Amino acid sequence: MTIYADNAATTKLSKTALNAMLPYLEEAYGNPSSLYAIGQRAKEGLEDARERVARCLGCTARELTFTSGGSEADNQALRSAAQQGARKGKKHIISTRFEHHAVLHPLKRLEGEGFEVTLLDVHANGVVEPEQVARAIREDTCLVSVMYANNEIGTVQPIAEIGKLCREKGVLFHTDAVQAVGHLPIDLAELPVDYLTLSGHKFHGPKGVGALFARRGAPLASLIEGGAQERGKRAGTENVASIAGMAAALEEATGGLDASVPRLTALRDRLIAGLEEIPYCELNGDRLRRLPGNVNFCFEGIEGESLLLLLDDKGISASSGSACTSGSLDPSHVLLAIGRPHEVAHGSLRLTLGADATEEEVDYLIASVKDVVAYLRGMSPFWRDLCSGKRPHVFEK
Amino acid sequence: MTIYADNAATTKLSKTALNAMLPYLEEAYGNPSSLYAIGQRAKEGLEDARERVARCLGCTARELTFTSGGSEADNQALRSAAQQGARKGKKHIISTRFEHHAVLHPLKRLEGEGFEVTLLDVHANGVVEPEQVARAIREDTCLVSVMYANNEIGTVQPIAEIGKLCREKGVLFHTDAVQAVGHLPIDLAELPVDYLTLSGHKFHGPKGVGALFARRGAPLASLIEGGAQERGKRAGTENVASIAGMAAALEEATGGLDASVPRLTALRDRLIAGLEEIPYCELNGDRLRRLPGNVNFCFEGIEGESLLLLLDDKGISASSGSACTSGSLDPSHVLLAIGRPHEVAHGSLRLTLGADATEEEVDYLIASVKDVVAYLRGMSPFWRDLCSGKRPHVFEK
Repeated sequence: MTIYADNAATTKLSKTALNAMLPYLEEAYGNPSSLYAIGQRAKEGLEDARERVARCLGCTARELTFTSGGSEADNQALRSAAQQGARKGKKHIISTRFEHHAVLHPLKRLEGEGFEVTLLDVHANGVVEPEQVARAIREDTCLVSVMYANNEIGTVQPIAEIGKLCREKGVLFHTDAVQAVGHLPIDLAELPVDYLTLSGHKFHGPKGVGALFARRGAPLASLIEGGAQERGKRAGTENVASIAGMAAALEEATGGLDASVPRLTALRDRLIAGLEEIPYCELNGDRLRRLPGNVNFCFEGIEGESLLLLLDDKGISASSGSACTSGSLDPSHVLLAIGRPHEVAHGSLRLTLGADATEEEVDYLIASVKDVVAYLRGMSPFWRDLCSGKRPHVFEK
Repeated sequence: MTIYADNAATTKLSKTALNAMLPYLEEAYGNPSSLYAIGQRAKEGLEDARERVARCLGCTARELTFTSGGSEADNQALRSAAQQGARKGKKHIISTRFEHHAVLHPLKRLEGEGFEVTLLDVHANGVVEPEQVARAIREDTCLVSVMYANNEIGTVQPIAEIGKLCREKGVLFHTDAVQAVGHLPIDLAELPVDYLTLSGHKFHGPKGVGALFARRGAPLASLIEGGAQERGKRAGTENVASIAGMAAALEEATGGLDASVPRLTALRDRLIAGLEEIPYCELNGDRLRRLPGNVNFCFEGIEGESLLLLLDDKGISASSGSACTSGSLDPSHVLLAIGRPHEVAHGSLRLTLGADATEEEVDYLIASVKDVVAYLRGMSPFWRDLCSGKRPHVFEK
């Protein structure tokens, strides 16, 4: 059996999305800025996709700027709000310790430019509470950025409540919703956020395309400057085919949420229950306030990379956490943020189910992880020390 | 007959490029940062594409950073060099009046940050001479940016000579080669440039992908910050399919240059000779030092947009200049830079031939433009004023 269980890293392009892309790859290849027929066909495809994405999210088409992906959208949102903040003499930004690096690194850069950044602690359950944000807001706060759902442990944040209090205080609010869009119902007509980031390849759309929602009235500055595309807010010939593919994938994903959310939630809970039978392990992040398809465990006495390689041998694609930092030997900043000690943070496993996951697959995942954990522990001197009492256990049996 | 004669705006995706993309759209959809097999297949595709692009350009794979296109690469190159300049107290940049806006607009931004920018005048033939650059270089110059070939009038700049003198003076040199790569032979092993920008969709690759060459030792800073992709220089999950498509298109284009350059040059010259039979018109840009497929004329007494719409009716896709500024009513900054007065700059026509252009097509282009120009002049009060001597002619008959 082969199971792709790393849908938080990227997803398989859906047939619907590919079929939406092909006309723009094969025929309607014109530049959308061109006046002649083949250019205008591309333009219509572009604007049709924008309308469709807007409908899925409950915003207007004018509030959407297409980007090359989630990272670019995050960078643009933070920079836009910060530039306005600087003009008003407000140079304080609030975010959290467990944001994606596409938020944390631009914030680091802004610190170098004289901004003060408060990174909120995250509770052990992987949730940031609105009161933490309320306490951190100051007179000179220009922006709050809190992710919608964490990319490693899948915990869903109280975005509506945080947004409400930001609005009351007159502070701009950005949410990196890369993991949430297409996986949870989101209605921007109701949700009080000023900026929202999304990425096509996280919901069975193509890689290399995303969007930034910036609510009417929220400042929006260009990150990539040049031509007048995207109402002057994002230069560069538009990636029409991928934008059309993303719109089709988003319609497919959001249209199916009523069925997929309860189905995946049940599969997720079955997977969690199965893995909890393994001794000395613990689920990372809140059991209920998490994405439907996300499961993330720490196992004592396990080295994450070996776990992944042996699962790969069994046909299972899984990860220890974010793909974006897989080159790094440091433990996950997310797991450290929720209080996991270094030695177990290295033994993490993230399994993220795709839209088409089945019970049979979940049972195979459980059996395979049990096998591999037992095998690895069997040859680990570190595990022997734990069993013999030479080292203390971190988790209860 | 339908003729797409706006290949400087964008090109039709080649079959070879599409076939190179499909495996990554349909099967090898893994995240290249993932350790398991399907991620590593994507990673291999990514690095294979990098090797192939490097071979086409005569550089090393490590010197290439994949971007979302030419605009992003231009922005990143300018910002990288400027940041180093600022650290060294060198805040003077030299460029030209007829660069693409993806260079001019970031330079404008840098001016706002305390940089001084010298924009060189362009000779009437559309060429910037090395002596102009030599005279403009100062002790505090950190960067020179001169495009390889102009996107509107197709004139090819003396990049090797300018690069040589920049190197002698220890000044970084960037060239926006978006219009040249895949159209002219370029060997970075010989060409003394520090940064070179290219864009996939200008040589029959996909839209939404490009690359920045940064020579070993040249400073390179991230524009999009976040994950560790592209050796930490460009965050975001890599657009593997489009990168593979771009590499295939570039191999196809550069592999065919020995045949295509003389063939397109002959067709271009046939087109120029045919259009010159129209009274009161003039070729924009040097007759010889121009891209093989580029023809750009100004016609007296013509309004560019009407010309394009009537040509579209005849099945011809053409433009008045850059697609990136087509929403603007201002005359082309390129035509103004080479000294065309406003009233004729509005009557410009750019025809850019594709790799598969034929003599028959060129003859149809000539006949159609002749017809349309005559028709439009026949109903233009402005043209009647010119003919009756009420207004002076700009061009000779």
